[in-house]
Amino acid sequence: MNKKPLILVTNDDGITSGGIKTLINIAKEFGEVVVVAPDSPQSAKGHAITIYDPLRLKEVDIYDGIKAYACSGTPVDCVKLAKHHVLKGRKVDLCVSGINHGSNASINIIYSGTMSAAMEASLEGIDAIGFSLLDYSSKADFSQGAPFIRQIISDHLNGGKGTGTLINVNIPKLTTQEIKGIKVCRQAKGQWQENYQLAKDPSGREYFWLAGDFINEDNEQDTDLWALENGYISVVPSTYDLTKYDEIDWFKSLEKIKV
Amino acid sequence: MNKKPLILVTNDDGITSGGIKTLINIAKEFGEVVVVAPDSPQSAKGHAITIYDPLRLKEVDIYDGIKAYACSGTPVDCVKLAKHHVLKGRKVDLCVSGINHGSNASINIIYSGTMSAAMEASLEGIDAIGFSLLDYSSKADFSQGAPFIRQIISDHLNGGKGTGTLINVNIPKLTTQEIKGIKVCRQAKGQWQENYQLAKDPSGREYFWLAGDFINEDNEQDTDLWALENGYISVVPSTYDLTKYDEIDWFKSLEKIKV
Repeated sequence: MNKKPLILVTNDDGITSGGIKTLINIAKEFGEVVVVAPDSPQSAKGHAITIYDPLRLKEVDIYDGIKAYACSGTPVDCVKLAKHHVLKGRKVDLCVSGINHGSNASINIIYSGTMSAAMEASLEGIDAIGFSLLDYSSKADFSQGAPFIRQIISDHLNGGKGTGTLINVNIPKLTTQEIKGIKVCRQAKGQWQENYQLAKDPSGREYFWLAGDFINEDNEQDTDLWALENGYISVVPSTYDLTKYDEIDWFKSLEKIKV
Repeated sequence: MNKKPLILVTNDDGITSGGIKTLINIAKEFGEVVVVAPDSPQSAKGHAITIYDPLRLKEVDIYDGIKAYACSGTPVDCVKLAKHHVLKGRKVDLCVSGINHGSNASINIIYSGTMSAAMEASLEGIDAIGFSLLDYSSKADFSQGAPFIRQIISDHLNGGKGTGTLINVNIPKLTTQEIKGIKVCRQAKGQWQENYQLAKDPSGREYFWLAGDFINEDNEQDTDLWALENGYISVVPSTYDLTKYDEIDWFKSLEKIKV
């Protein structure tokens, strides 16, 4: 790549989060970085976009020498505004999203704003990587996985397909030395075992608050959850094509319906 | 099936929309219907869930003889609240979502609250069907596709896998007689060509509003968009496993990274 690459950075934890700061610092080693990220936490917003309300975009001077914009919308809104307004007409070489506070392995990719932002870039034909660290703590140390993140970004910029590939990278809560390496795997089958905390507000009206624990239901060794539990960074190539191809034949009987 | 089936009905257009009324009326021919749906329009909310705010749930008496609850959250919140609170401990035989105002074919499944609600049920092991009508009009005639919807629901209750299958059903804007039948297909590759309307509010502050047109980029005849353009109802078996299996080998080179 001769020209300095253009890298779009976004996330779902918000533009002032520790994870995005680490990611910006890595990305700027490789090219021109532009940040468009939510002005407030947008975790678990999935692929939501804002259609009933106007969006606001504010240029912020918080990362030295980096163009950065805080957006009032969801992570996917950020990517759309980056493409259609902030970077209008420019070719983006890579979109990186994160580093998320907490796991986006297994089915968490579906709920994740971090991964949905990356998927939106992928839909637009931009290679995209979502990074997440398995540490929900506000004091999470994002630097430990940084050497791996640096290499993954370097690999993409030098040899990426450039066709809108999407990978979901999750990093275990270990030191750089403890991380055993990278495993490329499939999304594990897992599920949230949830309940709602039921309480009453000061006016006596009931409200519900979601709580739960994630359960791994997949015993195979080729999954992201296995990799993470065994000290590896997991990389899952991912897609926005939700067709379940192996069920098309099974459902063909519906074509016989006559009314 | 000997016992009267339990059918959960939800949507994203809100509990008072015309589409859900049609779906409730069809579903109640087959069993006990419980409705948990958003109290306000929640289109394009994707797989968003509410984690920063409490949720409200209100029993409403708007559909004769049907237990119905309006929820302050997203479509996915509705399904979670149905499972963990309203129907706690009961086995749901089928979840139907819709009938949505407007297409959820092609990549629109990703943005769709209607389909995300169905996917959430699927994640929980409940067979789920999302229905959408290609008519955004508030006066859309949901009755034309009803005979097909009735048959699809009947098929699922009588011969469904019961393993959390998920299908995305889109109905063309045609009369019952004009609809040629059903095609089981894959999700077409398409894209939104979008722009943002930029304007100023009364205080002189800029705001952005998303606008765009959907473009079919897929010329094959085995897609949902082809089926719909040719007078058929499209059925796409869908999944929450986003792994792009055919790229796992390509990305294996990342496993060589050493830091």
